[in-house]
Amino acid sequence: MTTKVKIELEKLGQKVLNDIDKKENPNIDIPIRALSNVIFDKKSGQLTLGNKTAKRYFFNVAHAKKFMQTMMVASFCKSLLDEEIHASIRDMYYNLKRTLADSNENTFDEQSESDPIIVDLEVAIDVLREQLHLTTDRKGIVAGNVVIEDRGDKIDWSKLGSGGWSIPSTVDEIGFKTVDAEFVLVVEKNAGFERLHEDKFWQKRNCILIGTGGQPSRGTRLLIQRLNNEHKLPVYVFADADAYGVYIYSVIKSGSISLAHVSDRIATPSAKFIGLTISDIYDYDLKKATIKAKDVDIKRAKELLEYEWFKKNPRWQRELNLMIEKGIKAEIEALSHRGLKFMSEEYLPDKLKKQDFLD
Amino acid sequence: MTTKVKIELEKLGQKVLNDIDKKENPNIDIPIRALSNVIFDKKSGQLTLGNKTAKRYFFNVAHAKKFMQTMMVASFCKSLLDEEIHASIRDMYYNLKRTLADSNENTFDEQSESDPIIVDLEVAIDVLREQLHLTTDRKGIVAGNVVIEDRGDKIDWSKLGSGGWSIPSTVDEIGFKTVDAEFVLVVEKNAGFERLHEDKFWQKRNCILIGTGGQPSRGTRLLIQRLNNEHKLPVYVFADADAYGVYIYSVIKSGSISLAHVSDRIATPSAKFIGLTISDIYDYDLKKATIKAKDVDIKRAKELLEYEWFKKNPRWQRELNLMIEKGIKAEIEALSHRGLKFMSEEYLPDKLKKQDFLD
Repeated sequence: MTTKVKIELEKLGQKVLNDIDKKENPNIDIPIRALSNVIFDKKSGQLTLGNKTAKRYFFNVAHAKKFMQTMMVASFCKSLLDEEIHASIRDMYYNLKRTLADSNENTFDEQSESDPIIVDLEVAIDVLREQLHLTTDRKGIVAGNVVIEDRGDKIDWSKLGSGGWSIPSTVDEIGFKTVDAEFVLVVEKNAGFERLHEDKFWQKRNCILIGTGGQPSRGTRLLIQRLNNEHKLPVYVFADADAYGVYIYSVIKSGSISLAHVSDRIATPSAKFIGLTISDIYDYDLKKATIKAKDVDIKRAKELLEYEWFKKNPRWQRELNLMIEKGIKAEIEALSHRGLKFMSEEYLPDKLKKQDFLD
Repeated sequence: MTTKVKIELEKLGQKVLNDIDKKENPNIDIPIRALSNVIFDKKSGQLTLGNKTAKRYFFNVAHAKKFMQTMMVASFCKSLLDEEIHASIRDMYYNLKRTLADSNENTFDEQSESDPIIVDLEVAIDVLREQLHLTTDRKGIVAGNVVIEDRGDKIDWSKLGSGGWSIPSTVDEIGFKTVDAEFVLVVEKNAGFERLHEDKFWQKRNCILIGTGGQPSRGTRLLIQRLNNEHKLPVYVFADADAYGVYIYSVIKSGSISLAHVSDRIATPSAKFIGLTISDIYDYDLKKATIKAKDVDIKRAKELLEYEWFKKNPRWQRELNLMIEKGIKAEIEALSHRGLKFMSEEYLPDKLKKQDFLD
């Protein structure tokens, strides 16, 4: 895999060298990442980039600095791969930041200049940032009957005490040794993960339990996709009954607009939503544990109503409309209103038994 | 330990029952947590609570609701201990929230009402929230030659691949099986942890590496203290060269005002600061990688100058004054400016060799 990425980086450099040899204006092709070039691919059920690209030229006052920055980032990533080390996107910024000789001009003034260049490079040579050995903060935890290999260590996800395994930002390098599970349960809240972990839910139901701690990191999304793709495990997303929770589900399932260029690598189109729904609030007697929705919640719910993948499903239309009409929301912790073990012993088993999922 | 905490909770209930039997106004004593009652104990080098307490009465219009809430929280914690389960502070809020019969009065309207009651209970019966089985989000990671036991699993901190062990909110229940290390290096940034972990710094230097991810969680502070107390390991804190980084060090070392009542359980007075300092910026040629300090940074640095434990040390006075005069700051990632391995192969070994720490 590393070799393939190196080849792509070398091809990029070679292309620019060829332009110079041919005395042409050196340039690189970068697919456009604006909303105008993001489409929902009905067949794959994912957001993807369209075909529009833009050329970035060296001899162009408006492009020259970005051209230089793109070359610097590409060259930095090449040396990460050569040295077999990783760096955070902030490390990269500091490493590349300098003042050009005899000038007051910096290569990069702020990290907000180097971050988008990484995405440009991702789309230009069609690789993941993680494959370029660039990392971000780790986020997300996992537990289950799974043994993996990571940097030469064998790690048993069932033997990590109260901790679970902290999901790194680069999971494409881990190898699965054994995977003994029937499904993956993705929980939006770490508190929910902790409760289910303590109640040994993953042992009792033979599943893999993942806590995302809010919007899942790219590493967590990649891990979910790998478990789904490589091990054919159904994925159920358990999130708050509010627009943000539904959006988290949508991102896991179909990708996001800002990361549309990598949907096929990190989205899981077959993921299903297990709860919490507004209907659940009434079905499971949680009315006392709801929160009044804010204007922004209602506004977001109205936007979600218009998403193509929610439009086609009457149940989603119903739930989103309920959210708007009732003007309430509920967090998964609201289930504790019925007792601390209600989530693991009543609610989730009931939902799983009825196969009561939203698609 | 659990038994001791249960006894304290029972004593609290018994006290109230006795008041009723004696036909007195039921009340509980709660040490005052305001700034007026926080003192810096020079001998222990920690912030602690003074002796002022206030009585909370049942028959008092201003106290009655809080009195009820305190009893509800105490009773909830008692059942957590009896059932041997844990709950997040948000779970607790939802579990206890209800509307009183024949009224529109809620036991708790918002979590912001139940959270301070937990601290009241902590100070009233002198236990840690963690000992009451209340949890918060896990934060912080650790790696090193250490084997622990947690919920019946043996966990080897040296064999967790790229991940490290995710530090739970309750670490007083873990047991140390073997600890083979010469010191503890606490890193403010997770990105710093990742770089040092990848470079096998903890293996090469035989240390325990802890990443706090910003201000350390209570669990992480408790872990640092336990490693220092129980295993006599020196603790070195590695944080940004800015007022916030110095404050993080100060909290690890001496505790914080808002948690003064638990300093003796979670602070590590012997902790030392290894860097980054403003002097380091000049000594290690990092000037190109600094950031202009904001007004708030300067304001905070001026406040830190007045802290008793920074006042007594001329080197701290010098560094804080440099921060103010030069108007710059630097993050630990700035070391990447000198190369990605500069931190693990040059800077830290050099500091350790010279024993160049601030106290």
